[in-house]
Amino acid sequence: MAPSTVPLGYYIWKRLASLGIEHVFGVPGDFNLTLLDQIYDVPELTWIGTCNELNGAYAADGYARIKGNPAALLTTYGVGELSAMNGVAGAMAEHAGMIHLVGMTSRPIQKAKALIHHTMYPEMDHAIYIGMSEPVRKTYAYLMDDSTMAEEIDRVLIEGVKSRLPVFIYIPLDIVSVQLDATRLETPLDTTIKNESTDVEDEIVKSTLELIKSAAKPAVLADVLTIRHKGRDLMRELVDLTHFQSFSTPLSKGVIDETLPTYGGVYNGIASFPGVADAVHASDLVLNIGPLLSDSNTGGFTRFIKDEHLVYLGHEYCQVQGKKYDGVHLLPVLKKLVEELKKDTGKYNIPRSPKSTKIEVPILSNLKSGKIEQSYTWQRLGKFLKPNDIILAESGTAQFGMPDATFPPNSQFITQIFWSSIGYTVGACLGALVAAKELKHPGRVVLIVGEGSLQMTVQEIGSYIRYGFKPIIFVINNNGYSIERAINGPKQKYNDVSMLWDHQKMLEFFGARQETGIASKSYRCETVEELEKVLTDEDFNSTNSIQLCEIVMDQFDYPWRLTRQLELARARLAGKQIDQNGIVGE
Amino acid sequence: MAPSTVPLGYYIWKRLASLGIEHVFGVPGDFNLTLLDQIYDVPELTWIGTCNELNGAYAADGYARIKGNPAALLTTYGVGELSAMNGVAGAMAEHAGMIHLVGMTSRPIQKAKALIHHTMYPEMDHAIYIGMSEPVRKTYAYLMDDSTMAEEIDRVLIEGVKSRLPVFIYIPLDIVSVQLDATRLETPLDTTIKNESTDVEDEIVKSTLELIKSAAKPAVLADVLTIRHKGRDLMRELVDLTHFQSFSTPLSKGVIDETLPTYGGVYNGIASFPGVADAVHASDLVLNIGPLLSDSNTGGFTRFIKDEHLVYLGHEYCQVQGKKYDGVHLLPVLKKLVEELKKDTGKYNIPRSPKSTKIEVPILSNLKSGKIEQSYTWQRLGKFLKPNDIILAESGTAQFGMPDATFPPNSQFITQIFWSSIGYTVGACLGALVAAKELKHPGRVVLIVGEGSLQMTVQEIGSYIRYGFKPIIFVINNNGYSIERAINGPKQKYNDVSMLWDHQKMLEFFGARQETGIASKSYRCETVEELEKVLTDEDFNSTNSIQLCEIVMDQFDYPWRLTRQLELARARLAGKQIDQNGIVGE
Repeated sequence: MAPSTVPLGYYIWKRLASLGIEHVFGVPGDFNLTLLDQIYDVPELTWIGTCNELNGAYAADGYARIKGNPAALLTTYGVGELSAMNGVAGAMAEHAGMIHLVGMTSRPIQKAKALIHHTMYPEMDHAIYIGMSEPVRKTYAYLMDDSTMAEEIDRVLIEGVKSRLPVFIYIPLDIVSVQLDATRLETPLDTTIKNESTDVEDEIVKSTLELIKSAAKPAVLADVLTIRHKGRDLMRELVDLTHFQSFSTPLSKGVIDETLPTYGGVYNGIASFPGVADAVHASDLVLNIGPLLSDSNTGGFTRFIKDEHLVYLGHEYCQVQGKKYDGVHLLPVLKKLVEELKKDTGKYNIPRSPKSTKIEVPILSNLKSGKIEQSYTWQRLGKFLKPNDIILAESGTAQFGMPDATFPPNSQFITQIFWSSIGYTVGACLGALVAAKELKHPGRVVLIVGEGSLQMTVQEIGSYIRYGFKPIIFVINNNGYSIERAINGPKQKYNDVSMLWDHQKMLEFFGARQETGIASKSYRCETVEELEKVLTDEDFNSTNSIQLCEIVMDQFDYPWRLTRQLELARARLAGKQIDQNGIVGE
Repeated sequence: MAPSTVPLGYYIWKRLASLGIEHVFGVPGDFNLTLLDQIYDVPELTWIGTCNELNGAYAADGYARIKGNPAALLTTYGVGELSAMNGVAGAMAEHAGMIHLVGMTSRPIQKAKALIHHTMYPEMDHAIYIGMSEPVRKTYAYLMDDSTMAEEIDRVLIEGVKSRLPVFIYIPLDIVSVQLDATRLETPLDTTIKNESTDVEDEIVKSTLELIKSAAKPAVLADVLTIRHKGRDLMRELVDLTHFQSFSTPLSKGVIDETLPTYGGVYNGIASFPGVADAVHASDLVLNIGPLLSDSNTGGFTRFIKDEHLVYLGHEYCQVQGKKYDGVHLLPVLKKLVEELKKDTGKYNIPRSPKSTKIEVPILSNLKSGKIEQSYTWQRLGKFLKPNDIILAESGTAQFGMPDATFPPNSQFITQIFWSSIGYTVGACLGALVAAKELKHPGRVVLIVGEGSLQMTVQEIGSYIRYGFKPIIFVINNNGYSIERAINGPKQKYNDVSMLWDHQKMLEFFGARQETGIASKSYRCETVEELEKVLTDEDFNSTNSIQLCEIVMDQFDYPWRLTRQLELARARLAGKQIDQNGIVGE
């Protein structure tokens, strides 16, 4: 007979496993070791130690984005949880769900306000860090009362999954063996998204269908929260059914199959490729799903979509032609909408626009030789990609350049253009690699990072090697923080970073060497010819080993989207008018 | 004629320079670039870009400890300030003064609650991160009102210097050119520590002198806040004058010249060398200066000094034989005490104890060959040290081992045994190197770090090389987090780290290579013979180049102090009695 109780640690790990989590990220510390002991009793879970907590949070974030479900992060009291803070904040900002377990001091020690290491003097309130994290989480459980621990854990996990936002569980050292009712584990957590009123959902769907019926030029604009809130497949069904011209954003790039004849491109306000913004702005019905309307995801707030043309399906509210429905989540609405369309496509005259509405992507460069330029690089890297690849583009020129590329089908793109914490992708790539492995994902993992950002979080390259992963790493080496040079002080020394690192030795240093038996390849390309040779090399295209390709570019060469967005920001700052045609008087 | 106003940025930089700051640490970001532009108008200041913000905070902390004055740290809105959080918290916990400048969004953008990158959705309150830092700072200025900016800056800087705690200045992007009254800069900031009542000071001094007069066995116990609050020289004068037997703590090690005939040793409660705790506990007058009574600085709370024998001179209060004087700062009291003693040494029968009261340090190991052991290592490294060396010992075995060593005169020791954030010393070492350079300090900078901690912050080794520094780096390579193995789960996999890194290639990777013209030397020692050879090598003893010595030790070999402290902690947890002789019934 199974025992009727289980220790708290086991309970938590088992619950995490039930959410589909197979790997847990983080750093051990003396307040979480006994909790970690119990992870070995749950064979569904594997511990992935990262080099530091910030990288651990980035890895958890990257894992969540690929897995499509919240990740788990474990840190220790004070030093650990605070180190992870910025990474958790990024997951909060961009809805990469994260369950952050913090091992803390035991309850008697807390009560005694003992001046234990990691405790903040003079108040010696051991709960003080709990308050610090408040803005970067949805909710938390502070497990002090044996009688409510199990339900508190369940509550927080459910909220974490439903909101796709970070949640925290604070676990005092003395409670990991508290016995909880084992039978609870037989009831799975209900994480289904439900709106309060199905009538309201029906109303939104009905009025949207009416608009679809009468629209002359309907479009789908699928933004990043569509992906985060698990609406991607439904949205793709919608696009498949309707043949509406469809657009992604810088943050959601890849959400729509870019080889579709109805793919319109990346809509980033008026900082988009020619024809893209015009098409969106000329549409009389924009089905905008999962929007995240930050500056860099809207071309610096140059999104000119009139409310009368807009159906907005968000995670906090929906809106149809100016009528706002607060608290209505996009997911059940999108589901009903797709069901209705499936039922009676004839009634709504769909598939609409059966002819191609593809907007041709301009060829930015015909560079064939010599120094490598930004205008050439990103579209070329796009051609290097294969179906199912997972691409990570770091904040900086990579992030502003990569939207130039056309992605093959089933690409998944990770970039953090809203939170924009440099160094993020190096940690996130570890998480993406782990998630891809869990999913037996057929594609490659391709990391594109600038040399300045790489310096922030470089140690996690060592974790790729430690755990046997074989990503393809592009290092954009352009002598400093080029994105900042574009913003201010192009020649100021503060925008320099160390140029002494030898990227060609990096994989060796971190462990891929003859004596360890771990293969790797590293290349350095200063010219187009050199880069072409690497990109067409069969072995480089494979995932036989971890590989690195350093691409040297000029420090003052910026992607056009970055330049354009900065022009718009400066014009706004100078009080100039901006309309859908650009800066007035430009 | 000099202009009557100066821009705010210039004002801040000039004020920092007036405090003796010559270098500013941090990471540029788009909200602090224009502030940084103005640093070049203040030739007294030099910008030191670090690889990431946490390391920048650690560097600032290390700088403050060696410089004896607060350091300056610059980060950017959201991502930067949050990444630095744990490093700032460490400075708060251990009183390493830090002026943290945060460049933030412009006031109009804040007012508009714009969803700018780095902003936390959904409230879009740009001041939200200001609240998060509240527990890790003394005070802050949020510069929103032109009319009070100058006085706010001055107020915060003064509080920062006086308290030796972190203070924050939040600088919206649009204010860096706000014109401030230049004449203010002609009046230096008054950072003198003054107590409210000099009568109270006199009373404390008088009663202390009475106790000194009658004490049979007086002692000085000088703790770390003596150093942080600039009382070291006064304390040394006191020791020189009185010849009292004197003790340091794990955190303050080196504060007293360890070659003095009256040096008693490192007092860490009953986890001290034989005779040390007995001597302190047998003293009928302990002048305890600058105490920081955390677990690892008191042998796990095994400090048995009776109130009737105690004069406690702290930064928040003083106490004489149980009589507490709240709000009285040690510095003016210590000054008066030394002055009084100087005036009439005869009256107080000093110098007392002219004979040697040195407590002999036991020789822990006579190891001459074979595998390197913890018991041998630390005393051996002590002999390697020279007068004026600055030694950094990382959290872990280095921190618990280094108190075994005897330091030469004028050693300065940096360790973080209270905040205990692993990886700290790698960043702090950069700051120590910068401060030592400013001070034209004659000694070497010696970093001792475990391989697991090194992985946390390794990129800053690249900054040592970038800025031309030549520290001596010992890497204790013992296959994982040995301090945690000692605590829990010695063989658990979570205590492993990547063993694939090639430390022998590290300095090359980060820039010390033939082609860069930067020399370096790296050694790996698995045996005593190998280590002896390196430690006695003339070149290795020099600072001709940056050097690394990897010391391989067994993963289950722990310093005795760590083992002892854990025994005490476990006994306490098990409800056993602990008295000044040890665990009762042991």
